[in-house]
Amino acid sequence: MLQTQEDSYLIDCGEGTQMQMAKYKIRRSHINHIFISHLHGDHYFGLIGLLTSMSLLNRTQDLHLHAPPLLEKIIHLQLDAANTQLCYKLLFHPLADEKVILSDNKIEVRCFKTQHRIDCWGFLFKQKRNPRKIDAERIKSFEIPASFYEKLQKGEDYVTRKGTIIPNDEVTIAAPLPKTYGYCADTIYDENLVGKIYGVDLLYHEATYLKGNETKAAARFHSTTVQAAAIAEKAAVKKLLIGHFSAKYESLEDFLAETTAVFPNAELAIQGVCYNI
Amino acid sequence: MLQTQEDSYLIDCGEGTQMQMAKYKIRRSHINHIFISHLHGDHYFGLIGLLTSMSLLNRTQDLHLHAPPLLEKIIHLQLDAANTQLCYKLLFHPLADEKVILSDNKIEVRCFKTQHRIDCWGFLFKQKRNPRKIDAERIKSFEIPASFYEKLQKGEDYVTRKGTIIPNDEVTIAAPLPKTYGYCADTIYDENLVGKIYGVDLLYHEATYLKGNETKAAARFHSTTVQAAAIAEKAAVKKLLIGHFSAKYESLEDFLAETTAVFPNAELAIQGVCYNI
Repeated sequence: MLQTQEDSYLIDCGEGTQMQMAKYKIRRSHINHIFISHLHGDHYFGLIGLLTSMSLLNRTQDLHLHAPPLLEKIIHLQLDAANTQLCYKLLFHPLADEKVILSDNKIEVRCFKTQHRIDCWGFLFKQKRNPRKIDAERIKSFEIPASFYEKLQKGEDYVTRKGTIIPNDEVTIAAPLPKTYGYCADTIYDENLVGKIYGVDLLYHEATYLKGNETKAAARFHSTTVQAAAIAEKAAVKKLLIGHFSAKYESLEDFLAETTAVFPNAELAIQGVCYNI
Repeated sequence: MLQTQEDSYLIDCGEGTQMQMAKYKIRRSHINHIFISHLHGDHYFGLIGLLTSMSLLNRTQDLHLHAPPLLEKIIHLQLDAANTQLCYKLLFHPLADEKVILSDNKIEVRCFKTQHRIDCWGFLFKQKRNPRKIDAERIKSFEIPASFYEKLQKGEDYVTRKGTIIPNDEVTIAAPLPKTYGYCADTIYDENLVGKIYGVDLLYHEATYLKGNETKAAARFHSTTVQAAAIAEKAAVKKLLIGHFSAKYESLEDFLAETTAVFPNAELAIQGVCYNI
């Protein structure tokens, strides 16, 4: 779950997601966009339950679902079998090309292909920069008409009738830098990813296996710790979050140690933990 | 989950069932038959995850699935989307007529229709009676050839060459009485059910609403406490278990009180609790 001040973006939805959301007090009503990377069960078996629960709870807002095309058929087959109609509008956006799939005044989301056993997509989230804020105290010293305020928020300088320039940063305050998040879903080690998520503030990259298992990882279209770290380093990201650990390992200590040896600013993605970007 | 000494029978499978099974230490490997009453999500959304997990854990035994016909299509669409083949044999048995759907040397299972918003089935489980046990001590006093032992186990008396009758119960011990369990899934109040589950040791009947809500219950094809109790009484069952309580109620106290007022030997079906038959 990616959360901004106003919105929640759900990225993949394994079985039991709605129970986990209840446990961690994440409001379903704040989700307007759901992104499904690929159709392996651990990434979407919880979706149909979430969609039908939203309807039982009388959701009214539209819900946008960005996912591989076949998911639309799977959902509708299950709704038809239950003779159920959702009480809200579910807008399905099939993933087909690498492009911007969502752009509003707050965020831009781009999808890109990862290399997995089946059709699989990563997502790049870029906050849009908020307009500059007008400094209510300092603007009092100048005679600037209110009609020019919108241009001030966009960064323009004001020029008085006499030709005096009032520099924008004298009367406005810059909004915080927008944040970026890259989610690489499930993937084999693939240097093509570097360009897609270059320089992000936070990169999620899977690390299913410990190092030394590169052959097995490649055969199953997954990555190892050092491979995730190598992508993070080549892409000069600020921070790396690794996850999707194989259930065969009892402890995760080695995952963190092996990863930080290559890329120090890394953390383990642990269920229920919140990571600030 | 219905458990006998050797086997587990899974009856319906809502989202998160496999997590609950892990929590309550129920072995997936003891399940060879799964029964799905109808295709509303709270009764089957956890099935696909369970089936695929069984495959990830390298199950080899056949698995029998008894369910409404459309479920086969839903499962195969999801397996195809994941490009996954189960590593064990999944044998699908579509529910179509009221009849015996499973009969082996341990149990007989019969399906019957309930009245719900969509096609819905109940199940009647009848243990088969074990053969009588030969009393090793007492048989020593008689000269009975070992070739007659099988007939003794079936209850036959032995007649000696001289014509003396050795009554069966002198040398054998009866096996415990076989048990019966009736599961009525989701249903409106329907007196046709009485004949289907008459005299069972344990009856599960839904009680979605408290009494006084009979009109609402009927409109949604569900039952109230007193309706469940009335069916139990008319069917002269030994014990009643009520469940499927609407989430709108905060406490379950009234459910039990209203039910036992009509049918005293009743209990609430509570998650994680084991009921002996």
